Order: sequence, then C-alpha cells, then structure tokens
Amino acid sequence: MFFEGSEKKVEIVVTAAAADLRRRPRAFWTELVSRCNATILSELHNEQLDAYLLSESSLFVWDDRILMITCGEITLVDSVAFFIDAIGRDRIAMASFQRKNEYQSHLQRTCFDQDMARLNQLLAGKAYRLGHLDGHHNYVWHMDKPFAPPTDDITTELLMYHIEGPAAQYLRSDKQSADGIAELLQLEQLFPGFAFDQHLFEPFGYSMNGIRGDQYITIHITPQEDSSYVSFETDLDIAAECPQLLQQLIAILQPSSFDLITFNTTPRLTPPPNMVCVAWQQQPLACGYQVEFRHWLSQAEHAQAGLQLS
Amino acid sequence: MFFEGSEKKVEIVVTAAAADLRRRPRAFWTELVSRCNATILSELHNEQLDAYLLSESSLFVWDDRILMITCGEITLVDSVAFFIDAIGRDRIAMASFQRKNEYQSHLQRTCFDQDMARLNQLLAGKAYRLGHLDGHHNYVWHMDKPFAPPTDDITTELLMYHIEGPAAQYLRSDKQSADGIAELLQLEQLFPGFAFDQHLFEPFGYSMNGIRGDQYITIHITPQEDSSYVSFETDLDIAAECPQLLQQLIAILQPSSFDLITFNTTPRLTPPPNMVCVAWQQQPLACGYQVEFRHWLSQAEHAQAGLQLS
Repeated sequence: MFFEGSEKKVEIVVTAAAADLRRRPRAFWTELVSRCNATILSELHNEQLDAYLLSESSLFVWDDRILMITCGEITLVDSVAFFIDAIGRDRIAMASFQRKNEYQSHLQRTCFDQDMARLNQLLAGKAYRLGHLDGHHNYVWHMDKPFAPPTDDITTELLMYHIEGPAAQYLRSDKQSADGIAELLQLEQLFPGFAFDQHLFEPFGYSMNGIRGDQYITIHITPQEDSSYVSFETDLDIAAECPQLLQQLIAILQPSSFDLITFNTTPRLTPPPNMVCVAWQQQPLACGYQVEFRHWLSQAEHAQAGLQLS
Repeated sequence: MFFEGSEKKVEIVVTAAAADLRRRPRAFWTELVSRCNATILSELHNEQLDAYLLSESSLFVWDDRILMITCGEITLVDSVAFFIDAIGRDRIAMASFQRKNEYQSHLQRTCFDQDMARLNQLLAGKAYRLGHLDGHHNYVWHMDKPFAPPTDDITTELLMYHIEGPAAQYLRSDKQSADGIAELLQLEQLFPGFAFDQHLFEPFGYSMNGIRGDQYITIHITPQEDSSYVSFETDLDIAAECPQLLQQLIAILQPSSFDLITFNTTPRLTPPPNMVCVAWQQQPLACGYQVEFRHWLSQAEHAQAGLQLS
C-alpha cells in the first residue's frame, strides 16, 4: 500500500522569443508528460493559465512559464530535458528544480546527485540542500543565470506528514468522494473565485488543481497510514490575501509534522503549541529568489507501540 | 567524503550444546567477518570475552553469544547466514537483528525489507519499526522463539548526530591521535577498570572496544561535517553504575540530535534544555526484551544558510 507522495518539481521561465507556450499543440504537452511516464487525466483553462491534472500530480502552463510537479517514482528530469531541447537553451530565462526528501529514497529510480548531474549537462547550474540530511530536507537546483522575478512571482509550499483526525479518517475510508473531500478541505470558502479540477484515485488518493486568473493552487493527498502526505502549493500572496490559510489547512488535516518552503514570500504561520521548529534554513539563489525551508515536528509526550512489519 | 556511520547489528545467543564459541579457531571469526567483506584490525581478550575491532565496527564473542556491529554498506546478513549455518538452527536460542536508519539509504546494497526476507528464510522471525519512517527510526527483527534473557542482559545504545564544539573540531582535525581522542572522551574516568582497543582511520574516523569481565563498551565515530555520527553501546547498568554517563557523552560531543535505544533497561538521561523528544516508541518482543526508542532534536532558533552542493 506504500505510495511515495513526496514530489519533484520544475519551474521554467522562457524568454520573450518563446513566450507563446499556450499556443503549443496539446500533443506537445502530452509528449512532455509522457517523457516521464505520466499521463494527462483532466484539464482546466482560463484566459491566462492551463492546468493539467496528471496521473502523478500536476502541470501548469502560462504563456511564459511552466510548472510541473510529479510524485511517485517519476523521473521528472526526462521531461525537463525534452522541454529544454524543444524550446532551445538560449530561450530559457530561468529554470529551477526541487526535490523533496522521500519517505523511501531507496525505491526511487534516481537520487538527487544523479538528477543534478543530468540537469547540469542541460544547463549550467547550482544546487543547494536546505534541511538536515537525516531529517526532512529539500534539494534545489537552478540554472546559474541572473533573473529578476516579477514581484508577484512567489511560491508557498506546505507539506504535511502523518495526518490525523476526522479528515484523515475520511480520506482513508471507502466512502469518500471528490466533492466530499472538497467540502472537508473547505475549498470554496478558502479559495473564492477559483475554478477547481479534482481527481480521486483508487483505492485512495486525491489531486486538485485550482486556477483564478494567473494564480494557481494545487493539493495532492496520499492518505495511507504510516506514510501519509499532503502537499499544498500556491502563488497566492497568503499574508495579504488569506493570512489564516495555512493554519486552517493544518487545523483540518492535523499533521504531526510539516514543512513550509517559500520563494520570495513570508506567509504567516503560527504552528500548534505542541509543535517545534527543528530545521530552519534560508538561501538566496543567484536566479533572484530567496528560498526558505522550515520543518516542524510535534513533541512525543507518550510512548507509542512500534509498527509490526512481519 | 561521505561515509555511512549508521549501523546494522546482530546478537545471537546459542544453546548450552553450542556454548563453547570462544574455543572456535580464529579462522572461524576471520571467515565470519569476511562473509560481509569486513576484516579484523585488532583484538582484545579477557577470561570471559573476546573483542575484535573490525574494518567496519566491532565483533564481541562470549561463550554463549556473539554481538556484531557493522557500518558503511556492509551486508551483515551474509555473516548471520554463515554463523547460523555453522552452528545449526536448532542450537540458536535467541537471535535479533537491528538496522538503524541511514543518512543515505539509497547507497545501501539492501534495504531492511530485503534483510528481513533473508533472515526469515534462515529462522522464522518477527520484525518491527520503532520511530517514524520520515525521521530517525530503527528496525528490529528477532527469531520468533521464547527466550528468557538473564537480568544483566541489557543494552543501551546512544546514537549522536551532527556533533559540534571543540571535540568535533578535534575529531575533524589532522592533529588527532587515538590517545588524544581517548582523553577527549574521558575513557579512563568514565570506564574505570576497562581495557581498551582503539583504531584511528584515515583520514578521519575512530573505533574503540572496551571490555571488563563480561561487560563491553564500544564507540564508533564518523566525524565528517554534514553527516557526523557517533555511536556508543554498552551492556553496563548505567542507572546503577554510572548514572551521569549519557549526559557526559552528550556534553562532550554536543550532538544537535540523538537517539537512545534500550533493551530491558532505563538509563537516566536529562537532555539539554533546547532539545525536544520527537519520537518515543516502546515494543515488547516475544524473545523477552522490551525495546524502547527515543529521538531528540534541537530546536532551530535561527535561520542558517543552505548547503551548497555544486
């Protein structure tokens, strides 16, 4: 029943000469995702943004940039290589690749060192690790080329582990529905004006993309006991637009551990009182982003039983 | 410069019919350790116990039991299979195998699932995981056969990560000597009456076995920055004999994270004030041991820079 929810992610901005990405034929995007063995399940479009729900996470396409997130054992660098070859290296304005630590890294097809070596062959880059090697951590590679991100080019990633409580029970039950999950997550209330595209996986698992103008939200849920993982990501300015958002997601999903990763933004987050921050790293990237990683864990106040494996 | 200090460990007790283990020729022990590609570097003997310092950790031999600890990428199950074949399954009274979570599990030759499958082919067993899958954790497999451990059959393991301060600096310097490390660790004062066998590795790394009567201590140090690891293990009754021991080791090595794993004992340990217990699990094993796992981490009070990888 194990499924690796932890994601790899790529974001690429193209120069003005290539900034007609949304005019590319659908076959281009099908090919892009097929390069890492993913498929498009459904899609959502508005005037500024195309959002594809994938068999393993999501792809967002703006005229001048793409954002692709993949979970499981997917080798996202294969899609990165296809995209860069198709667009041309000299028309890449910014590229960043992130890889979250896995629950079971030995089940992955590649390790970050291998991904990084491959990326460095495509584009000269730099890489960092934020967080300790023996705990939650995040790898970030970026093309080593100056870039000036627009002021609204910000990202917030909230990664929740070991979800508990009624929502977690519902997400593990056989009575769940996509609309039931949307209600549980209070999507309509938390994200007014967004259009949503949802998918329920068998026997468990849920993915959602939401778009409004050029803004996106995406939520991916792997509810399996012992390795549950929920990722939330957005470019919304949480501090200005919805300061209670992160607290509300945490209150609903009751994770016993979570990471907050931000690019050029500082959303408000007051963790529950029993949680402590055990890793906090900040790194300015030469491509114009300040990335920050924080990892919270709940204190263990009582002894629990071990997990029987066989 | 990365070296995986995290250990695999096996302890096997034989029945009275086979309890002449120390009479076995040295070639037997050379063969045992060679099965997992380790070698004997030096040895220490007294009336009750033989202690071998290995190229990757330690082997202790009593008349009725062995304890073997290996680090790096060693596949300890190969030595376990050799030992069980040589002794005979019906003369095994107790067998337990432990595997600590690795810094870099994807570099290992096997994962615990594979070790467990192999062990279950040798002897019918049960396995548990203590600690969370996404943080420090410990796997324990044991032969599923009732066993009544003697009252002094207790074990304390203190695993220290990310050592800091003057001791850590000394351990990473090129001026270190085995005697200098012994002084730093206050071996003579902390362990009166023990005989010591030490080995310094190139360019870094230190191993020490100590014996007194039928009691042992063993310390293994991987000082490398970013993945430093120091393991201490003993069968001393710390609460009765040296209640300040664990605090003193922690005060000297200043780890920013440590695990305490105990079998049938509850040594005293008051962690430094900035450290919090983030995992605490207890599990009774059908072979007569109560195993307990606790993991402490220091709170992150200031942002640090990320680690540049390339």
